[in-house]
Amino acid sequence: MNAVGVIVEYNPFHNGHAFHLHVAKEQANADIVIAAMSGNFLQRGEPALVSKWKRTEMALKAGADIVFELPYIFATQQADSFASGAVSILEAAGCNSLCFGSESGNIDSFYQTIGFLKNNNELFQQKVKYHIAQGNSYPRATALAFHDLTPNEDMLDLSKPNNILGYQYILSVQKQQASINVFTVSRKNADYHDAYFSSETIASATSIRKALFSENGDIFSVRQYMPETSYNSLLEYKEEYGHFHDWEQYFPLLKFRLVQTTPAQLKNIYEVEEGLENRLISTALESYTFKQFMEKLKTKRYTWTRLQRACVHILTNTTKNEMDRKVEKASYLRLLGMTTKGRVYLNKHKSQLSLPLISKLSLQQNEQIMLDIRASRIYALGTRKNQQRLLEMEFKQPPLILN
Amino acid sequence: MNAVGVIVEYNPFHNGHAFHLHVAKEQANADIVIAAMSGNFLQRGEPALVSKWKRTEMALKAGADIVFELPYIFATQQADSFASGAVSILEAAGCNSLCFGSESGNIDSFYQTIGFLKNNNELFQQKVKYHIAQGNSYPRATALAFHDLTPNEDMLDLSKPNNILGYQYILSVQKQQASINVFTVSRKNADYHDAYFSSETIASATSIRKALFSENGDIFSVRQYMPETSYNSLLEYKEEYGHFHDWEQYFPLLKFRLVQTTPAQLKNIYEVEEGLENRLISTALESYTFKQFMEKLKTKRYTWTRLQRACVHILTNTTKNEMDRKVEKASYLRLLGMTTKGRVYLNKHKSQLSLPLISKLSLQQNEQIMLDIRASRIYALGTRKNQQRLLEMEFKQPPLILN
Repeated sequence: MNAVGVIVEYNPFHNGHAFHLHVAKEQANADIVIAAMSGNFLQRGEPALVSKWKRTEMALKAGADIVFELPYIFATQQADSFASGAVSILEAAGCNSLCFGSESGNIDSFYQTIGFLKNNNELFQQKVKYHIAQGNSYPRATALAFHDLTPNEDMLDLSKPNNILGYQYILSVQKQQASINVFTVSRKNADYHDAYFSSETIASATSIRKALFSENGDIFSVRQYMPETSYNSLLEYKEEYGHFHDWEQYFPLLKFRLVQTTPAQLKNIYEVEEGLENRLISTALESYTFKQFMEKLKTKRYTWTRLQRACVHILTNTTKNEMDRKVEKASYLRLLGMTTKGRVYLNKHKSQLSLPLISKLSLQQNEQIMLDIRASRIYALGTRKNQQRLLEMEFKQPPLILN
Repeated sequence: MNAVGVIVEYNPFHNGHAFHLHVAKEQANADIVIAAMSGNFLQRGEPALVSKWKRTEMALKAGADIVFELPYIFATQQADSFASGAVSILEAAGCNSLCFGSESGNIDSFYQTIGFLKNNNELFQQKVKYHIAQGNSYPRATALAFHDLTPNEDMLDLSKPNNILGYQYILSVQKQQASINVFTVSRKNADYHDAYFSSETIASATSIRKALFSENGDIFSVRQYMPETSYNSLLEYKEEYGHFHDWEQYFPLLKFRLVQTTPAQLKNIYEVEEGLENRLISTALESYTFKQFMEKLKTKRYTWTRLQRACVHILTNTTKNEMDRKVEKASYLRLLGMTTKGRVYLNKHKSQLSLPLISKLSLQQNEQIMLDIRASRIYALGTRKNQQRLLEMEFKQPPLILN
């Protein structure tokens, strides 16, 4: 059986994702789609709108066949680590190909850019340093440096978030010498960051979240942008847990931790660097919502995303020791769910999987998985209703099986 | 001017306290009463019903002339440290005498007991060890050991909480060679722990709190047991901050901290000893109210109070390093409020105070006061209304001046 891999967050699942799954399967001539999906906290440093279980259900009902959790140690990281962990999971699961959405939509521009930057690495690094010294954040400095050097129009626009991710996916495949054929599809009609709906059925996850959390936001307004099954999953989740998750629910906990901690303790937390600890504490003391907090915290030097990720690590108490950036590969395949077709695939390939398959958690697993468990527990503390159910799911929930 | 000292918590201030202040002043032939009062967290390991500012107001309106804060480092400690810190404050403030309420009411029984235990110390310690080995908590083992040895009925009943405190006050006065004359008054009509009102105007603070937090508890039911001014202060506080403080409001924060921390980090917290860290974490995970949590946590080995104090230290992130039990004396007099008469006293005695007088906080004070600041900030996070006001009071509020 032929499997194509995708790397996703599904926050929430929408028509663009369904389109991507469809095209991926078709173009790869694959029998099934395997998704490596972030758990309860995401790459942009945010809690997921609904739990990883509900997002798995959405994915399985709309075209994915197997969903593995992208462990916390990769999911809440910069693009390079995020990509590296995800690629290692798809490789271990036996995927022959990987299909990602990008703003570019042209796989050649990725390889050209990688080749160009390898050949001009020294000069590129100098430029990056220069732009950082000018007070820019690292991602912005990278984009500017690349812009300075860009020799022709066939190169990638590295200021676009999905181009950056795709670029890192390919680098990871090369670095890990994975026998995975990579291709890209153009993101349909919606820019990743656009805040308002831009067509009748396609909208970015960002704009859907924005609509859900808007002041008079009723769920109905997002219905047209999602598969019916995904929309129903959203409704069910809100019914069961009382709300969708966003940073505001966790802000009282984050603030509490920042008020009770010392700067020295805070410096042990991953991504809390260079005096950020004092700024975090003093800003927390005078902020009463997460939005207020972030707006006061933000400087040119740090991206919003970078700061949010630091906040996630403070919330989950994840230290520099625990988040070793040198770890490049996952050490397990945590199965969140599968279709019956996905199950046939796993049964067939069981003996060839190059990582242990975890279907049900028990304590005293390895260190990486302890981070996932802690993150899930903290995530559950944000619920208003049925906290106990969500808290206990991490151990009690077997993988979902659908179809 | 002649000053008598009292050591108090006023949680909340009631008629028994007013009676105590009256008798103290009379019997000591004093011009003013100086109170050393616990801040926002109390000796039994609980958040105070209302803030230290409101309790200061209650005290000043009902007979006290000066209120100093008993620092966190003493207030949330076992009886010996609590007593030691409080006595050092009264001594530094120039009190000639100290008057405490006790179940015994007979000062001779205290001195007899102290003398007896000094003479039989070795045997006493053996008995204490024996009872601890039998699985008893330390306070219970002490009371049992004393009971084993008690030679006659003139001795103190050391199972009573106010007798224990009084005993420690006298020991501290002796140890610090303070020139303070100690005397005791019998507690009027109410046992410290009785949960229901026992007479028409006198009730214990415990029973008043119980009434305030009872399911259909209206404030009016406690009115008869308090001076009118104290009652009005209670009303005002509830109006301003939306509720009285109890552990339940802080439980989501405590639980969050216990879920995010590691056993190794938790062991650094003061009073978290002997494997208690694992028990605290696993119990938090399956508890949804503080009451539930404590009932599951409780064993014969630890008193309820001891466990609650450990929880306060977890909440305020107070480490073993910070709570050095060897510190016996306060290092400052933090003035919370005074009457005009109290002010005259302070102006007269300013040059003789043996500790620095702090009327208004600034940052970068000493380590002891940093614990008070942190505790006050964490306390403020329990409010539902006007959190900002309470949070900022620690720095903005000058000492109250009444009359």
